[in-house]
Amino acid sequence: MSAENPDLAIAQAATLLPITEIAETAGIPAEALVPYGSYKAKVDVRQMQGLADAPSAKLVLVSAMSPTPAGEGKSTTTVGLADAFTLKKMSTMVALREPALGPIMGIKGGATGGGYAQVVPMEDINLHFTGDFHAIQIANNTLAALIDNHIHQGNQLGIDPRRIQWKRVVDVNDRALRSIVVGLGGPTQGVPREDGFDIVVASEIMAILCLATDLADLQARIDRVVVGFTYERAPVSVADLGVGGAITMLLKDALLPNLVQTLGGTPALVHGGPFANIAHGCNSLAATRLALALSDITVTEAGFGSDLGAEKFLDIKSRLGGLSPDAAVVVATVRALKMHGGVAKADLADEDIEAARAGTVNLARHVENLRKFGLEPVIALNRFPTDTEAELEAILDWAREQGFRAALSEVWAKGGQGGLAVADEVLAAMDTVEGDGFHHLYDPADGIEASLRTLAREIYGADDVVLEGRAPAQLRMLQRNGWDTLPVCVAKTQYSFSDDPSLLGAPTGHVLHVRDLVPKIGAGFVVALTGAIMTMPGLPKEPAALRMGVTESGESVGLF
Amino acid sequence: MSAENPDLAIAQAATLLPITEIAETAGIPAEALVPYGSYKAKVDVRQMQGLADAPSAKLVLVSAMSPTPAGEGKSTTTVGLADAFTLKKMSTMVALREPALGPIMGIKGGATGGGYAQVVPMEDINLHFTGDFHAIQIANNTLAALIDNHIHQGNQLGIDPRRIQWKRVVDVNDRALRSIVVGLGGPTQGVPREDGFDIVVASEIMAILCLATDLADLQARIDRVVVGFTYERAPVSVADLGVGGAITMLLKDALLPNLVQTLGGTPALVHGGPFANIAHGCNSLAATRLALALSDITVTEAGFGSDLGAEKFLDIKSRLGGLSPDAAVVVATVRALKMHGGVAKADLADEDIEAARAGTVNLARHVENLRKFGLEPVIALNRFPTDTEAELEAILDWAREQGFRAALSEVWAKGGQGGLAVADEVLAAMDTVEGDGFHHLYDPADGIEASLRTLAREIYGADDVVLEGRAPAQLRMLQRNGWDTLPVCVAKTQYSFSDDPSLLGAPTGHVLHVRDLVPKIGAGFVVALTGAIMTMPGLPKEPAALRMGVTESGESVGLF
Repeated sequence: MSAENPDLAIAQAATLLPITEIAETAGIPAEALVPYGSYKAKVDVRQMQGLADAPSAKLVLVSAMSPTPAGEGKSTTTVGLADAFTLKKMSTMVALREPALGPIMGIKGGATGGGYAQVVPMEDINLHFTGDFHAIQIANNTLAALIDNHIHQGNQLGIDPRRIQWKRVVDVNDRALRSIVVGLGGPTQGVPREDGFDIVVASEIMAILCLATDLADLQARIDRVVVGFTYERAPVSVADLGVGGAITMLLKDALLPNLVQTLGGTPALVHGGPFANIAHGCNSLAATRLALALSDITVTEAGFGSDLGAEKFLDIKSRLGGLSPDAAVVVATVRALKMHGGVAKADLADEDIEAARAGTVNLARHVENLRKFGLEPVIALNRFPTDTEAELEAILDWAREQGFRAALSEVWAKGGQGGLAVADEVLAAMDTVEGDGFHHLYDPADGIEASLRTLAREIYGADDVVLEGRAPAQLRMLQRNGWDTLPVCVAKTQYSFSDDPSLLGAPTGHVLHVRDLVPKIGAGFVVALTGAIMTMPGLPKEPAALRMGVTESGESVGLF
Repeated sequence: MSAENPDLAIAQAATLLPITEIAETAGIPAEALVPYGSYKAKVDVRQMQGLADAPSAKLVLVSAMSPTPAGEGKSTTTVGLADAFTLKKMSTMVALREPALGPIMGIKGGATGGGYAQVVPMEDINLHFTGDFHAIQIANNTLAALIDNHIHQGNQLGIDPRRIQWKRVVDVNDRALRSIVVGLGGPTQGVPREDGFDIVVASEIMAILCLATDLADLQARIDRVVVGFTYERAPVSVADLGVGGAITMLLKDALLPNLVQTLGGTPALVHGGPFANIAHGCNSLAATRLALALSDITVTEAGFGSDLGAEKFLDIKSRLGGLSPDAAVVVATVRALKMHGGVAKADLADEDIEAARAGTVNLARHVENLRKFGLEPVIALNRFPTDTEAELEAILDWAREQGFRAALSEVWAKGGQGGLAVADEVLAAMDTVEGDGFHHLYDPADGIEASLRTLAREIYGADDVVLEGRAPAQLRMLQRNGWDTLPVCVAKTQYSFSDDPSLLGAPTGHVLHVRDLVPKIGAGFVVALTGAIMTMPGLPKEPAALRMGVTESGESVGLF
């Protein structure tokens, strides 16, 4: 095992079960299995009868405290918790998001858990996997080309080139493509206009794929997508362009959930949607529903903290998909607590109980946020090698003092065995649900502004919401078109409850700055861009790509 | 069978053999087979011993006369000819190019043969297949982002943003991306510069993938790629950027040949490289070599006519890969002959023996061109339903008068059975090789200008070559760097031997206009852009995408 790269080494050293065996364990019939090599497959749910009538499993949602550069291990905890349920002989499935390649080349290096709590084959999952993101990319960009071609070929629909909201995408962190001018070079090269690329996960196609119930719903959603506006400011949809069929055709395989396995042998559906800061950031509804139909307990995750992925899981995905989570987990680490308590990254290895305790303000708000949805979350304190016993004790003591459920998670080092304490606490929490149980936080019918204000006050701890820049005019546009009663998907920095990434802990008294309100009619929500959040990341000065390579026998190097 | 869409209907109605059986037929061991669903697989050649020492099959190269909008059926003939050899109980493989998605959405609708001479599963092959083009796209664009990031982060290498020659790519016909400005929006959004997108097949990564002998050669070629020049005009390579390993890692699966089958049950390797007008346009060397090692007779194709794909197959791929074709086929149709003889597309259904005879000047030059490489080609006259017996007779008579080998091909309607006459003629031609046999046409050591002049005079029928625009300065740059003795890959319209697409038949007395000379050091050749050829196509007024869709059970509509 290479010291610098233990995750990849553990994954490469693991003996995997054939995907056909994993499918059998999960109860997926052979005729529904479309293998991609020996260890991954797509599940053709159309070949499976009776799924809709299957009793639904218990659903556990894993969230986390506000992330720090120190890393929290949310995917790791999700996988380890599922493996703990498997160890307890419960019929378990885990439903995860697919990693995006862009950030892997930048900072992250991979997103399939870590240590002895990983989904495998990790190299494949982190690289091209079964091609879903590539399919989304080309579907998105084919639509973009068809829009510009329509304008170039006479513009029968009268699309205003200054009011096209459909952007192109790549799965690369490429800041140079954020703001561009296309169509230069004269009359045969299209119509010049301002444009820009987003990262693939920010594409409305990704949201649609993650929310579609079947192929017909996928096509209906794609047809509803509003790509821009005419010179008379009337919306132009994909249906108006007549190309919804072609775009759906490009996505028909991508819609099928992907089956892999955890290191503990739990069947894992890894399908769709990371980036809960700029997108809704949940894995696909199709995969979650399949897992719920096939297992007794399904563990899933949503990106970042309760203010981002979890809120969107509970207010958007659960609402549109009729899901009702039974339990929630909030992943925390001593390191992240210390950073929220004011310690610099370089000093994290030094014991500092006081700072860790100070950082609990962040964790507490995440717990309280989830309680506002009628859930009683369990804190999973994810152990890192540098943590001292005294630090871990102090945090568990603090949780008890507060009346929060909490347990130590040691899944990175011990796999499912290290997740048993959290698993027991989750099962206990489910047995003692009080009150009315799960409910959504806001009612979209009250209007976008009201929804934003509720989120800002209840979840972000803000005093108010300000619409600035283009947002006020966009709000009027939403109202004119009857779109202001859709759920809102807030794009916001993951590092703070506020829209300012430097405000750690649990800030109050701040204002949420909304600068853009973009209708995603196919997805069924409005994206509110806040603060300085961008829908196309950049690469750092020393990108992870510099460390990557492949051996002559075809094994990856530098993925972790 | 749908009348408008017989190819798709035939393909969807066919009963395919499991890919494991096809692999067994081909002699590919189970441990080297990586299935992608039940009917397609990648072949992990690293798991196969002794390939290098296997006796080489006979190699048949299929080319065609200059294409017209009437369609010639080169892939159809290639597949049908292979199925004819299979019917004759010869151990046969066919090695084809992968279709590009961009033109499928535009005009073509598909590129897997037609009628009863197709490779299947045609829907999968025409859409995402095993993801090779997607992998090339993201490898190409990751490199592009790393270049712009390098400049943004301090530009340690001193790359001149005005002299970057690495372009981004998409597999979409998107004219609006031909000429763009990136990096707008201020200091945090990168460095503004002129840029542009090519279609994926024009990427140097595609050429490299199609010419690499193994993973180590792939990495070496990628490291050699020159992405641009410094302010001092020194070349900057991928090795200088230190990211060759990451780019190679993204391509490690794409390098493996894809196995499918023909409707006649012949094992087919479909891997890499269409677009012989703007790229070198051959399937991968890895796939061709695998086919040669496993079969007694391998049938392969190169894109468009003898002036494009065949010339590049013979002068570039064969030279770099040490291949020596044993026979060649030139596909012709009465319809194409009539168009080269002056008939408009709308009038092609009317019998016109005189026009067909007049169009033979085009066909004759293709035959003579291939003879210049020491090959004795067979004309395959590909029958269309509208052809009259008298027209077909007239062309076969003409061929006999000229001393050209020729046979009628009826593979579209009859599959392999309809290709037996051509197969017999090909076998007879191989038995009667005279002279020294196959040789290349020019010696790169004579310099790019000499190579271009030889091609222009010997193959295109031109009087001379003119370097214009940037080309003269680029020639000096090539000479300065010692790159002017590389083979030349001419990008030229496919519709004419000249660089003017309106000059049909067999034009003489024209001049080849070379406007750009782009060094592709990783691929190992220099691309010469001629006439008005573009490396990014556009969509037509009524794109094929308008007719496409998918049924609720997941079957494609409108692919043909």
